[in-house]
Amino acid sequence: MSIRIGISGYGNLGKGIECAIKQNPDMELAAVFTRRDPSTVQILTEGVPVCRTDEAADWKDKIDVMILCGGSATDLPVQTPEYARMFNVIDSFDTHAKIPEHYANVDAAAKEAGTIGIISVGWDPGMFSLNRLYANAILPDGKDYTFWGKGVSQGHSDAVRRIEGVKDAKQYTIPVEAALEAVRNGENPDLTTRQKHTRECFVVLEEGADAAKVEEEIKTMPNYFSDYDTTVHFISEEELKRDHSGIPHGGFVLRSGKTGWNGENSHLIEYSLKLDSNPEFTSSVLIAYARAAYRLSQEGQCGCRTVFDIAPAYLSAKSGEELRKTML
Amino acid sequence: MSIRIGISGYGNLGKGIECAIKQNPDMELAAVFTRRDPSTVQILTEGVPVCRTDEAADWKDKIDVMILCGGSATDLPVQTPEYARMFNVIDSFDTHAKIPEHYANVDAAAKEAGTIGIISVGWDPGMFSLNRLYANAILPDGKDYTFWGKGVSQGHSDAVRRIEGVKDAKQYTIPVEAALEAVRNGENPDLTTRQKHTRECFVVLEEGADAAKVEEEIKTMPNYFSDYDTTVHFISEEELKRDHSGIPHGGFVLRSGKTGWNGENSHLIEYSLKLDSNPEFTSSVLIAYARAAYRLSQEGQCGCRTVFDIAPAYLSAKSGEELRKTML
Repeated sequence: MSIRIGISGYGNLGKGIECAIKQNPDMELAAVFTRRDPSTVQILTEGVPVCRTDEAADWKDKIDVMILCGGSATDLPVQTPEYARMFNVIDSFDTHAKIPEHYANVDAAAKEAGTIGIISVGWDPGMFSLNRLYANAILPDGKDYTFWGKGVSQGHSDAVRRIEGVKDAKQYTIPVEAALEAVRNGENPDLTTRQKHTRECFVVLEEGADAAKVEEEIKTMPNYFSDYDTTVHFISEEELKRDHSGIPHGGFVLRSGKTGWNGENSHLIEYSLKLDSNPEFTSSVLIAYARAAYRLSQEGQCGCRTVFDIAPAYLSAKSGEELRKTML
Repeated sequence: MSIRIGISGYGNLGKGIECAIKQNPDMELAAVFTRRDPSTVQILTEGVPVCRTDEAADWKDKIDVMILCGGSATDLPVQTPEYARMFNVIDSFDTHAKIPEHYANVDAAAKEAGTIGIISVGWDPGMFSLNRLYANAILPDGKDYTFWGKGVSQGHSDAVRRIEGVKDAKQYTIPVEAALEAVRNGENPDLTTRQKHTRECFVVLEEGADAAKVEEEIKTMPNYFSDYDTTVHFISEEELKRDHSGIPHGGFVLRSGKTGWNGENSHLIEYSLKLDSNPEFTSSVLIAYARAAYRLSQEGQCGCRTVFDIAPAYLSAKSGEELRKTML
């Protein structure tokens, strides 16, 4: 019997989950839940119902794992504990500073209901976090570096779009190659924000807008741009659509460290991702952890988990024997 | 109380363990066991006894985890199950084809004794295996690549040293940069053995030896060299000592895969290591898993485990709360 997945929220992430299920023969899509009018939501999988969010409770015994595809700002802090009272759940909660609070809320709800809740699954937090943990455990005497990009930052793109005179915009975060190389060379540099990443904006102006003023406003925007070297390109709406409609992302997690009686030997651990589609990759990670949630629940476990708490074998459809034979 | 570590076998790996313990304040070295005459073995840590291997049983209650630093060919298949009858054990067994058999033997012994045995810990098998598993679970529709090097292959260096007329030698395995780039570019190449790695030998000849004959013998040696493009350099004993006395290694694990309803998006996951000292890095991984072995045993678990079976949090000295706060 396959693992029955529910998707709550059908945006880019929800659609990515739907695609990922297709690649995993031990899973099936049970239902999609939306806050929109279900009759207006067209999904890709034939024969699968689209339901209203408030119907979810009726699916309690028909869904093994519910994947929550809402936003971290306002949706997940409420939804994940709420759904954990009915289902095994997974989310990609990514407000790093609020993870301890979110963990506590989901843990309480999941323990009460006897369900599993896995939070903050994706690539950062997620695979990048795992790599930070492994590398730190292996090389206690060392230094961590995380670089993001090249990729589209939704938050920064939104910030540019809010500027008066901007019709549309896309922002790319780009790691500084020289900084990456210095880390790879074992130089253990202390890097400022400006030395690690640059930002590049592609902006479509409203008719009659003042380009110089918009550019100035972008470059001096506190928190978002003022600490970075930012390049602004003004392009047409057609060019934006043609050249910048993808959602690529990626990045690098590095740790350089020393071993030996007197720290005489250096080592570098590097993990990197180059992703055509940020939401589809995140979805693929979520689906692998959905398998883990299902298995943990089958074992009778309950409560909140993160990627740190889950043995890698739980993610794979293969048996332990098969894994030892083929991948060890 | 700190975790009391025993080291069985005091070669490069055993010495690496000793150095790694120094970097981990929650651990202490209890004793070193050797097949040599203990009075001839000088260790780095003051006040720690060097004992004969056959005294190990006396240490049953004074060691929390015994780390087995013998060879995979003949030592570990016997030692790991044997020691698992007395201690929680860890080894770096790396004969990939014999892992299932070794697992079964260690599992039976450990279950009978109520101990934990973690096998095949290091970087390959070990961290590379983990990365293969994670990447396969996330991108089921994809292709795996592992490249080794640049680094010293002990087995190949030994093979060259056995040739008549060779006084000493060091062999480096080198990944072919063009092949790596093709993988990184998402070309999903089918690579032959020759296309993936080259081999480079630094050879010191015996006086009067025939260089051309030695070179020919190296390059045509079946299994070891005949399937590779090999370069042979003849150097002096001083040069070998000066320039090639290190034991560096490393490598790359990559997986490229597709997502999307019609596989329209490509992704690349890459993990790489650049190691000054192969044995010291391996030791550092072993020590992190020794912490896990201790904790699993404290929980009352027993039997054989691999890196696949162990949740990442077990490797870190930090608490779950601390990890979520600082690394997630």
